[in-house]
Amino acid sequence: MSAAGPRDLAVVLASGGMDSLVTLAIAREAHDVALLHVSYGQRTAARERRAFRAIADHYGIARRLEADLGYLATIGGSSLTDRAKAVRETGIVAGGGIPDSYVPFRNTHLIAIAVSWGEVIGARGIFVGAVEEDSSGYPDCREEFYREMNRLIEVGTRPETRIEVVTPLLRLSKREIVERGAALGAPFHLSWSCYQGEEVACGVCDSCRLRLRAFAAAGISDPIPYASRPS
Amino acid sequence: MSAAGPRDLAVVLASGGMDSLVTLAIAREAHDVALLHVSYGQRTAARERRAFRAIADHYGIARRLEADLGYLATIGGSSLTDRAKAVRETGIVAGGGIPDSYVPFRNTHLIAIAVSWGEVIGARGIFVGAVEEDSSGYPDCREEFYREMNRLIEVGTRPETRIEVVTPLLRLSKREIVERGAALGAPFHLSWSCYQGEEVACGVCDSCRLRLRAFAAAGISDPIPYASRPS
Repeated sequence: MSAAGPRDLAVVLASGGMDSLVTLAIAREAHDVALLHVSYGQRTAARERRAFRAIADHYGIARRLEADLGYLATIGGSSLTDRAKAVRETGIVAGGGIPDSYVPFRNTHLIAIAVSWGEVIGARGIFVGAVEEDSSGYPDCREEFYREMNRLIEVGTRPETRIEVVTPLLRLSKREIVERGAALGAPFHLSWSCYQGEEVACGVCDSCRLRLRAFAAAGISDPIPYASRPS
Repeated sequence: MSAAGPRDLAVVLASGGMDSLVTLAIAREAHDVALLHVSYGQRTAARERRAFRAIADHYGIARRLEADLGYLATIGGSSLTDRAKAVRETGIVAGGGIPDSYVPFRNTHLIAIAVSWGEVIGARGIFVGAVEEDSSGYPDCREEFYREMNRLIEVGTRPETRIEVVTPLLRLSKREIVERGAALGAPFHLSWSCYQGEEVACGVCDSCRLRLRAFAAAGISDPIPYASRPS
């Protein structure tokens, strides 16, 4: 977090989910914040956008950009965007494997938008809620990826531009993320993580399982409604 | 060009312009080719798409993806996408300065799409018609940028994925590009470079001037119609 000083403008990537909510809660402690929300043809895009807007309203953040990467759905190759593929319910990401909800190189698209926008509005930091622990299978959720991304931004933007991607959650456990969010008063009830449901979270997709396990480990009750909770 | 062997599948970024046409002509000498065309809200998007399709038809390439990055126009910050700004006609990119047709970090968006698509369809090479000579002001047209991009792709894709960005024109002069294209029988008459016109090229925008100068240097007549040509 060397590039962005106190109260510098920061772009926060906000999906509407729990991790980016806590990332936003952290970012706004020290920065003025602009919010970027990206849809990419995923099943629950409308529900996530609703969560994003509710969170942005909660914090009174007016500077927002909603971008649509519909072409990622055309590309396919992922159960999140390809409706012919079922979302896996058979358990949390197994060690080493890449989950089939993986959208190839997805985070590069999201960060590229944040950098283009950030350069225009004068942002210094791009806050991304990537978490290594539960995303070890995603090649673009690792520290090494963000290190390379920051080098690319350095050579690929105007010489006077100083933009750095910041990943405050990268080394935290999901339990620590919930605890951190709770300490900062993050409105978890407005967030949405489920890959399948729109009104009631399914409780069985990978994303629901990780979220429920995180709240359970933190000893905090997850305030959103679930169709079922693992016993 | 170490990653992609002969007849491996390659994705070629094809704007409809002269440089990407010659890049395509080079790529298809050694590879099976898939074509990616990206619109990003630029003034002449419809004309460029028409050129792209004519070129793809000419070569009989069926595997195509057309992606729309309309949100780049929302971001603004460039005379190519921001209709409130006039395209500069006062001469070719001056030494060192960044032209105001610069879209911040644009090539990262284009390559990210090519990589995501390439990973799904099994491509090994991503061919990009970047030219350092006439684009020295664009931070993301330099060799250093592509070196970093290839590192990012290596850490940001599946371990078994081998995708490399290839820039065959990077070190060529515009004259050499025209000569190379002519030698390969590239259909220059189907390409479009003008940032302003749709039926007749203006002849005065930076892109027209660079193109006309290149053909003149090569001693070849540019087959597309111009409203005016510099004397």
